[in-house]
Amino acid sequence: MGRLSLSNRNEIMQESPIRKLAPYAEAAKLKRINVYHLNIGQPDIKTPDEMINAYHTIPPVIKYGPSEGTLSYRKKLAEYYNRVGIKVDETNIFVTTGGSEAIIFTLLSALSPGDEVIIPEPFYTNYNGFAVMAGVNVVPITTSIDTGFDLPEISEFKSKLTDKTKAIVICNPGNPTGAVFCKDKLQKLVDFARDNDLYVISDEVYREFTYDCKATSILEFENFEENAILIDSTSKRYSACGSRIGNIVTRNKELLKLVLKFGQARLCPPSIDQTAAEAAVDVPQSYFDEVLVEYKKRRDLAFQELSKIPDVTVSMPKGAFYMIVGLPVEDADEFAKWLLSEFNVNNETTMVAPVSGFYATPGLGKNQIRIAYILNTEDLKKAINILKLGLEEYRRKQ
Amino acid sequence: MGRLSLSNRNEIMQESPIRKLAPYAEAAKLKRINVYHLNIGQPDIKTPDEMINAYHTIPPVIKYGPSEGTLSYRKKLAEYYNRVGIKVDETNIFVTTGGSEAIIFTLLSALSPGDEVIIPEPFYTNYNGFAVMAGVNVVPITTSIDTGFDLPEISEFKSKLTDKTKAIVICNPGNPTGAVFCKDKLQKLVDFARDNDLYVISDEVYREFTYDCKATSILEFENFEENAILIDSTSKRYSACGSRIGNIVTRNKELLKLVLKFGQARLCPPSIDQTAAEAAVDVPQSYFDEVLVEYKKRRDLAFQELSKIPDVTVSMPKGAFYMIVGLPVEDADEFAKWLLSEFNVNNETTMVAPVSGFYATPGLGKNQIRIAYILNTEDLKKAINILKLGLEEYRRKQ
Repeated sequence: MGRLSLSNRNEIMQESPIRKLAPYAEAAKLKRINVYHLNIGQPDIKTPDEMINAYHTIPPVIKYGPSEGTLSYRKKLAEYYNRVGIKVDETNIFVTTGGSEAIIFTLLSALSPGDEVIIPEPFYTNYNGFAVMAGVNVVPITTSIDTGFDLPEISEFKSKLTDKTKAIVICNPGNPTGAVFCKDKLQKLVDFARDNDLYVISDEVYREFTYDCKATSILEFENFEENAILIDSTSKRYSACGSRIGNIVTRNKELLKLVLKFGQARLCPPSIDQTAAEAAVDVPQSYFDEVLVEYKKRRDLAFQELSKIPDVTVSMPKGAFYMIVGLPVEDADEFAKWLLSEFNVNNETTMVAPVSGFYATPGLGKNQIRIAYILNTEDLKKAINILKLGLEEYRRKQ
Repeated sequence: MGRLSLSNRNEIMQESPIRKLAPYAEAAKLKRINVYHLNIGQPDIKTPDEMINAYHTIPPVIKYGPSEGTLSYRKKLAEYYNRVGIKVDETNIFVTTGGSEAIIFTLLSALSPGDEVIIPEPFYTNYNGFAVMAGVNVVPITTSIDTGFDLPEISEFKSKLTDKTKAIVICNPGNPTGAVFCKDKLQKLVDFARDNDLYVISDEVYREFTYDCKATSILEFENFEENAILIDSTSKRYSACGSRIGNIVTRNKELLKLVLKFGQARLCPPSIDQTAAEAAVDVPQSYFDEVLVEYKKRRDLAFQELSKIPDVTVSMPKGAFYMIVGLPVEDADEFAKWLLSEFNVNNETTMVAPVSGFYATPGLGKNQIRIAYILNTEDLKKAINILKLGLEEYRRKQ
């Protein structure tokens, strides 16, 4: 660089801990090493036929759609929500380009620059990036692997309150924690938020993936109409991460009016992907039942295999398809790089996501990794075995 | 609303002047009135077969792609740029979700919150929204219909310089003005920007649509590698507005590194749309030749028909597919609403975009409208005739 300066956002904008090791993985692949990707929530589950087939019905001109999403898709989505117990209609829904844009638009609309949002950590690391884009500050509350990363006590939220606090973000079921919050604890959070005029932004993109109990939506609580904002996406639900269709659901119509202004600026979400997402709503329950059986099998296998490794800590996830694993290493980031660049078993290695980047508090989670159990059980077993052998060699060399 | 507050961005975030009259159009359609949409740059030109066919090649799992766009698409795009005289390779390209995201990421990366960007007005109205999202301030320089909205003199740019000025945005060919800037004038701007360490962000999404001379890209200038940022999109080029694929091109690698961080946060651009955009690069020149003949016909017709209306001012556009029209009314916004809600000719009416929202300076452009000449000549002629008859009746009633 010459004298031209970059934005000062460069200093606070982190690299994605999920994607930052990608160059090491690329280098490994160039050496003809097969990499098992446990680092990213990209499932290998087939996208349902209903959705795939919709891509074959292309109009002669691929036109702009409405900024808020097409009426027919929003109506169809409302059907879906009512089916899962969330009573809303199409006027409560705003369609976005992925869940990412849903969170960005929500932060831009609910918070002013310089406002604060409380988020239990470790949290989905990209919330950091969205907060930087919206010019708002993340105030973390640390949760622990020992309590399964459960929702913090209200006293902890209270201790973080300032006159800048405008919202709380939760992810339920949780990425990267796998936590699913019970209704009683959520009710306390709802009461606290109502009493303190806070929005609760609830990222529920893993709704379908719970193994022991159903997840409760933030929109199921009464007398909380203006405060509750649900973030959703079709990416995980239908194993269609590349189709970039998400949405906001809220009964707060004033907020939606401002969201619409941001939405109009970027014109519209992708048209054909939206048609496919609409078709996906008709995917039968049997699809999810099968998928869930498969994920549960993977979860149980991953937990069992990881638990066997000496000095490894693992908390049994209740939902989503992630697991945080405490490793007997000082710096999981270095270990993850080492796995990719210096270790392999029969020309295969494993890629994991270091968790430190999922904490907002510096220095936390340095010995933790997140694994996404999104590979079939055979590959998953191999990938975890490589992790185990890698750990043995890495510790010997220290 | 109760005590919950919205973001203070609500006060500075404008409604889209292109889309804000949509409810009036919807109401007209409910009354079975056919609405000619001259308000939005949604061409009726068929999306090329190369692109449409690509949607039929769906993989079994619609996966995330790389945050910066797939390597194969970026390589293909580089081919396209080299063909049109812009010497770049795939490492200079970052793929975005539409040109909209390309501008947002560029502003987020090149400017710090509170910095200023100079933009000749009237300008593409959504630049305002992107500036609000990025927390930067737009400093307009007013251009005039009398000079065909040509690039302002350097002295005018100089007069707007402060220690907060970091960039200049231009749109070439211009939306909403139809202006195409000649190389000599651009060279002066380039020299000025280089001398003052300013980025020049050049929105060139209408590159293919020029009628009298070719447009010059900002990337064609030498010794300007770090300053020049090109914004592009497939929406208009291939009449595929709903496919939401755009991109940034720059030789400034440091800037691209920061863009990548924002890109990683939102994961990736739409996968299938990107495959289609890649196929589109092979669309033969004959497609554009035909399209251009068609647009030129429409431009000439629109200019000719509008020029015939008493007291109407119109400037002959040199590129894009927009035309600014000065009307003999006090408030073009009111007139546009009136056309939709109280006027029709044999149950047909015309929708136009009031131009005041394309100016950052309050009070300017109040008697101007923008028309997009994106309908076939027969419909375009009818639509302009309705405008003419509407003007007569509206003026009689005043």
